[in-house]
Amino acid sequence: MSPVPGGGQPTIVSIARQAGVSIASVSRVLNGLGARRETVERVERAASELGYVPNAVARSLKDGRTRQLTFALPDIGNPAYVAMVRAVQGVTKTAGYRLLLHSTDAVVDDELAVLRSLGDRTSDGLIICPIRVTDDHIDALTCAAGPVVVMGSLPSGVPVDSVRADSVTGAALAVRHLHDTGCRRIGFINGPSDTVPGRNREEGYRAALTECGLAYDDALVVETGFGIEAGARAAGELLGRRPDAVFCANDQLALGAARALHARGLRIPQDVAVAGMDDSVLARSVWPPLTSVDLGSTERGRRAAELLVERLDGTAPIPRGTTATAPPRLVVRASTALPTENTRST
Amino acid sequence: MSPVPGGGQPTIVSIARQAGVSIASVSRVLNGLGARRETVERVERAASELGYVPNAVARSLKDGRTRQLTFALPDIGNPAYVAMVRAVQGVTKTAGYRLLLHSTDAVVDDELAVLRSLGDRTSDGLIICPIRVTDDHIDALTCAAGPVVVMGSLPSGVPVDSVRADSVTGAALAVRHLHDTGCRRIGFINGPSDTVPGRNREEGYRAALTECGLAYDDALVVETGFGIEAGARAAGELLGRRPDAVFCANDQLALGAARALHARGLRIPQDVAVAGMDDSVLARSVWPPLTSVDLGSTERGRRAAELLVERLDGTAPIPRGTTATAPPRLVVRASTALPTENTRST
Repeated sequence: MSPVPGGGQPTIVSIARQAGVSIASVSRVLNGLGARRETVERVERAASELGYVPNAVARSLKDGRTRQLTFALPDIGNPAYVAMVRAVQGVTKTAGYRLLLHSTDAVVDDELAVLRSLGDRTSDGLIICPIRVTDDHIDALTCAAGPVVVMGSLPSGVPVDSVRADSVTGAALAVRHLHDTGCRRIGFINGPSDTVPGRNREEGYRAALTECGLAYDDALVVETGFGIEAGARAAGELLGRRPDAVFCANDQLALGAARALHARGLRIPQDVAVAGMDDSVLARSVWPPLTSVDLGSTERGRRAAELLVERLDGTAPIPRGTTATAPPRLVVRASTALPTENTRST
Repeated sequence: MSPVPGGGQPTIVSIARQAGVSIASVSRVLNGLGARRETVERVERAASELGYVPNAVARSLKDGRTRQLTFALPDIGNPAYVAMVRAVQGVTKTAGYRLLLHSTDAVVDDELAVLRSLGDRTSDGLIICPIRVTDDHIDALTCAAGPVVVMGSLPSGVPVDSVRADSVTGAALAVRHLHDTGCRRIGFINGPSDTVPGRNREEGYRAALTECGLAYDDALVVETGFGIEAGARAAGELLGRRPDAVFCANDQLALGAARALHARGLRIPQDVAVAGMDDSVLARSVWPPLTSVDLGSTERGRRAAELLVERLDGTAPIPRGTTATAPPRLVVRASTALPTENTRST
């Protein structure tokens, strides 16, 4: 930056003189109210030459705020996040922040870059939803340059706020319900078991089987991705093993599984019952509507956003490391209702 | 800001002295690499007192870039945008930009605020998807403080780049296809006709009816929202009027309509055929898979992102106001296949 002739901060007057435009034009441009492109460019060039700190940046330096918050989630295409985003946005909007979303595709480097970007001051705080938590995550979370709330589980002792689902209990609810409706060969379509969601769902599935007196059978479990097509393929594989129910680790997998059953002329739930997780809009939208486990997306989104806003306001509990957990809730729909001709009861 | 003692820009050394921390700590904090909260606060306070321009901001002043782009879309929950977001992100990531999404809920004030926020320099450029275009939009677009690409139609003469779908032709493709498969009472579930998508789809529906020699019948048209539940309710209304097909303005409406038909024991397509628009993941995910019109989401997302990056690089055509249009494509699936027992042929 060139020094300002005569010293001191450049003013709107000195910028107008340098740019050869009116003071009103400079004001419009610097306040982001817009102007003709040429005017914008002249004012911006003059401001830059004089070392002027633009308005939002100046405001940010003064009160440390951009009034923007970021929510980084793994997959913008997964409807499980829709209710959560709406809940986060409801809170942040009321608190006077613009919410920006970033889809990380669950790529670790991308998640770490978003965490580090808090140091750039283009966002005041971050909600992040890592599906794996590596040592690098823990380092970056601990050293983050602004408040962060993790949507998901963290190892104990990490001084970072988090809001968790109880998907172990949630998965067990679904499996016990399938057992209660007479199912005895309960297949399981899971996402990758090296992810937090995958590991938790497997734990819940195994615990419920034990509790119901059913043996764990490797042949009834397929580990795949978390998407619709993965669910359809996995259901195709499972059918050869004659399950009377399929429990799916999320609604996308359940939707794919249901499509695969329909395509083979199998009736849901009379031939094979289907249950999903997340209770996303998908579960209510297909025929038959899917039984699913509500993992409290709305409540978690609301709580995470409140925590973040409280951190920024300085009203959150000290020290950091608050943990909130939303209880799961089973939502029974036609995909698992007790069949009228009950051919499955033991 | 206080003046720097001795004049000149504050340095990492003067900030370290003022904060009472090491130079290495200042470097870590200012580069966004993080540090203990207390250190971050001391460094930030010292930097602010000395009038230091933080790193990203300094970078932004120097080259005018934050390396962030924003994509503002009306509804994060509408899967029609998923393919588009992925395509935009593919291009922006390759070009070295982080993509942030903002869900405007189609609220005009929110759309205008995002346009004006380009003046804040927290984002280098914007792709925006307004579903209505008001005079205020045109003002804000014309005066935007950075490059904007509109996803959708603009009145001619507005000097802003845009990428359009041809939904008039797309809607006509679907209606003609329904006529070709023997349907003669083709119902239409539309979104609000005062939106650009709603108006275009109605135009295409009417044009195709005329072309097929079918009379427009008000009783076969329901105008509602763009969501799944709206589709289910509208289909319920339409059924009393005995349509042999329902053309829906998007896949969400079609999904709702299909569920309503299933729930009443009607067969798709033998009793009522169903066609949607957008060819989103929903169309492929339900049973029977839905015929839908691909409006080129992927191509539009890619083209819009390329245009934006070209504007930022200075390689886009001058003057602004480039228009690209993606051609629609009918994707026929089982929800409209010709019935084997054809009870509808005339």
